[in-house]
Amino acid sequence: MQTRAAVAWKAGAPLTIETVELEGPREGEVLVEVKATGVCHTDAYTLSGADPEGLFPAILGHEGAGVVLESKVPWLKPGDHVIPLYTPECRECKFCLSRKTNLCQAIRPTQGKGLMPDGTSRFSLNGQPILHYMGTSTFANHIVVPGIALAKIRPDAPFDKVCYIGCGVTTGVGAVLFTAKVEAGANVVVFGLGGIGLNVIQGAKMVGANQIIGVDINPAREAMARRFGMTDFVNPKDVPNLVDHLVQMTDGGADYSFECVGNTTLMRQALECTHKGWGRSIIIGVAPAGAEISTRPFQLVTGRKWEGSAFGGARGRTDVPKLVDWYMDGKLQIDELITHKLPLERINEAFDLMHAGTSIRTVIEF
Amino acid sequence: MQTRAAVAWKAGAPLTIETVELEGPREGEVLVEVKATGVCHTDAYTLSGADPEGLFPAILGHEGAGVVLESKVPWLKPGDHVIPLYTPECRECKFCLSRKTNLCQAIRPTQGKGLMPDGTSRFSLNGQPILHYMGTSTFANHIVVPGIALAKIRPDAPFDKVCYIGCGVTTGVGAVLFTAKVEAGANVVVFGLGGIGLNVIQGAKMVGANQIIGVDINPAREAMARRFGMTDFVNPKDVPNLVDHLVQMTDGGADYSFECVGNTTLMRQALECTHKGWGRSIIIGVAPAGAEISTRPFQLVTGRKWEGSAFGGARGRTDVPKLVDWYMDGKLQIDELITHKLPLERINEAFDLMHAGTSIRTVIEF
Repeated sequence: MQTRAAVAWKAGAPLTIETVELEGPREGEVLVEVKATGVCHTDAYTLSGADPEGLFPAILGHEGAGVVLESKVPWLKPGDHVIPLYTPECRECKFCLSRKTNLCQAIRPTQGKGLMPDGTSRFSLNGQPILHYMGTSTFANHIVVPGIALAKIRPDAPFDKVCYIGCGVTTGVGAVLFTAKVEAGANVVVFGLGGIGLNVIQGAKMVGANQIIGVDINPAREAMARRFGMTDFVNPKDVPNLVDHLVQMTDGGADYSFECVGNTTLMRQALECTHKGWGRSIIIGVAPAGAEISTRPFQLVTGRKWEGSAFGGARGRTDVPKLVDWYMDGKLQIDELITHKLPLERINEAFDLMHAGTSIRTVIEF
Repeated sequence: MQTRAAVAWKAGAPLTIETVELEGPREGEVLVEVKATGVCHTDAYTLSGADPEGLFPAILGHEGAGVVLESKVPWLKPGDHVIPLYTPECRECKFCLSRKTNLCQAIRPTQGKGLMPDGTSRFSLNGQPILHYMGTSTFANHIVVPGIALAKIRPDAPFDKVCYIGCGVTTGVGAVLFTAKVEAGANVVVFGLGGIGLNVIQGAKMVGANQIIGVDINPAREAMARRFGMTDFVNPKDVPNLVDHLVQMTDGGADYSFECVGNTTLMRQALECTHKGWGRSIIIGVAPAGAEISTRPFQLVTGRKWEGSAFGGARGRTDVPKLVDWYMDGKLQIDELITHKLPLERINEAFDLMHAGTSIRTVIEF
């Protein structure tokens, strides 16, 4: 079949809208009509050429929602509403069975090469293969995805909102709920009040955190963060020593901190502002290639823990449907985070909005 | 009263045996006759002058066992056998009540200054105050200790063995049991096969770990470590890439690793040899002042956790008596680790043995 897609031909160049060939699903795969997709920093990171694992030509996009058209797995049927998962959940690999991680590795090698599990691509243009991206490629109107990489969600959830659960919402909310397991009464410091940080904040509010302190050098972020549950705002430019200031505000340090920027200096501050004895600092942001974090080991020996979170620690097929339910039940806010909507033809504007810092999330609707 | 003690007059100088004045216990304090004490690397570290918080003149020693002579707390009476605790357990401070740490801070400020909680010292010589050390000063035959810093142990346990539970045994075994909570079937890598490393190994064996890999550049350590439960030995000098080698040996990485040396390069290797998704690396060793650990944040984002352990995560009054029981029940080996015994007069030889690497632990008997 043919479908419309935004193709990334090479690093640094704008996407172009093409009509590409899409081969139907093979065994274990599913054909999905993508109804909406967010445009995320990770797409921009790969498109920029900074991602050392980025491959071209490819169809980017990893934050979508859509409808099954044809299924070659028994647990999905045409008409099912789904969210594609860049972190699949096979429920059979060592990682899935460990009960300790969400990082299913069942299709990792081929996914990293932009290919389906059998080592080939379903996309092509004029006979030239076009690569998949993160196993999802939601910048195409139709995609073929491994069945283990689809979360089945309730049919009444709006695609143009819950697509954001495919990455940003789950990454932030999940880091609080599934990775850190923040408990009621805890105090939390969130570094960076972009889309991820705001979702960390609403996760912390949802589980009953007491103090939710947001840190950002952009004062314009304060108002929105307060609407999501932030109780205190700190602009690092306004305080002589950020770590000391946060330790004082929290009577000895944060119970949990989250780094949502990808800056290794902030990662150190996030660790060191946590409480002696039990503070846990969770890295969510993606640092530039080669950048390193450092601290004195005394920070850890005296009880702080340094950790990370990918896709919010969520097991996609198990947990993503829960987040959709929580949104539909009014426990999670998403509408306010989707600041812009564009048709596929104007997808390059979504990247411009992101770089200008004027959007939280732009959603493309097909 | 008067007692005999080894006094550290200044950094770098040998200890001298003195008859010092000891004032009796004030409210909340206890007079203890020390029967035996280990000589630990931490004593040597402070004596060397490398410890930026070291104070002189002081009576060192923190790994003892003895008998209560006079008590001004209701939970101890004359004749009780006790182990002094450099990490007390008040059961009332924010830390004790957190249920998340063993690092009781009730008397931290004065302990760090070498003083009793009321800000004075009980030791003096010719009218000059001599400082306490780590709240314990077990290099004296008699000591006054805060009651919250004494673990009451069974009366049939031999002082010259269980004194080692006052630091080394608990630090190593506890890091496995109380900090990491290693589960049966786990694989474990231990960096450094000195006294702490051997105790980590026996802790890992006790809880049913499968693979217990010891790493040391000294091949002479292998035989003893195998007796304590080590299943595999790796000499870093024998392999081209230690981290890769350990990851291969463990089919993807260690579930848990323990750094027992205090070397920041090893700390990084210990983290990076753990398993993607769930590996936890516990720093036990004390690094030189100012030294820093570093890694790429990707190590954490992909599920590894970097942590530390002090006094094995043990709550002294609660857990130390359990370790004494486990030794008496034959579940922990201590006798084999005490390679030398000396009278107080020859305590400087204990430091020589430690620096020469010929002892695991030397115990001083009064």
